[in-house]
Amino acid sequence: MSQTSKELTKNLDITYDDKGLIAAIVQDIDTQQVLMIGWMNEQAVELTLETGRATFYSRSRDKIWVKGEESGHTQEVVEARIDCDQDALLLRCRSNGPACHVGYATCFYRVVETDSHLKTIEPRQFDPADVYSS
Amino acid sequence: MSQTSKELTKNLDITYDDKGLIAAIVQDIDTQQVLMIGWMNEQAVELTLETGRATFYSRSRDKIWVKGEESGHTQEVVEARIDCDQDALLLRCRSNGPACHVGYATCFYRVVETDSHLKTIEPRQFDPADVYSS
Repeated sequence: MSQTSKELTKNLDITYDDKGLIAAIVQDIDTQQVLMIGWMNEQAVELTLETGRATFYSRSRDKIWVKGEESGHTQEVVEARIDCDQDALLLRCRSNGPACHVGYATCFYRVVETDSHLKTIEPRQFDPADVYSS
Repeated sequence: MSQTSKELTKNLDITYDDKGLIAAIVQDIDTQQVLMIGWMNEQAVELTLETGRATFYSRSRDKIWVKGEESGHTQEVVEARIDCDQDALLLRCRSNGPACHVGYATCFYRVVETDSHLKTIEPRQFDPADVYSS
């Protein structure tokens, strides 16, 4: 079991990929659902930690975007975690609406069946009563 | 709210990135902890779905690896989900040991503090009683 300084340090020392990005997983801190994955550059990481609001980098639009800036479905970061080799973030958030632009609470609303077909498992739209039930 | 065929289809139609990879988030289905993130190429996705055991592609070693093949800390996939635009997987797994090679149950064992220092929040080693308590 090898351990490097990345795994043991108490300093944030993010490893960005060759495009300058890090994956950020968003988990609802109340329901524990995994909501989505997004990408961040260094500026997006700094803005997320400074503002406490999940902020990503759009690869297709080449720009910073605050989750929910148009829809109002923001994600308030209660706790940010970094993984062992500091190349992935986990944001434990309180959701102000559905994470998915399609309208589901989570972007992971479909299960892969054994025949590789998909079954939608969470047809309900966002219900604040569900998310704030903790 | 735009919807494309990727979001509505009942067929698995994965979008791999320019390196032929897709991100796979692993969540413990009993504790709901987010355990790790790994990368899969098409072969790793097929093996994971066929065998029910989390199988990744190592970018550094350029090879397929079964999680736990050396440590015994395998992850049995109870449910695989795909996200809206089909470029990320969520594996809801039962863990046979800690996910992290450092020994923690999850690779996300450190919280980022506001001063960008890190606090280890889960010093305990793997305890089967915790994981199988559901």
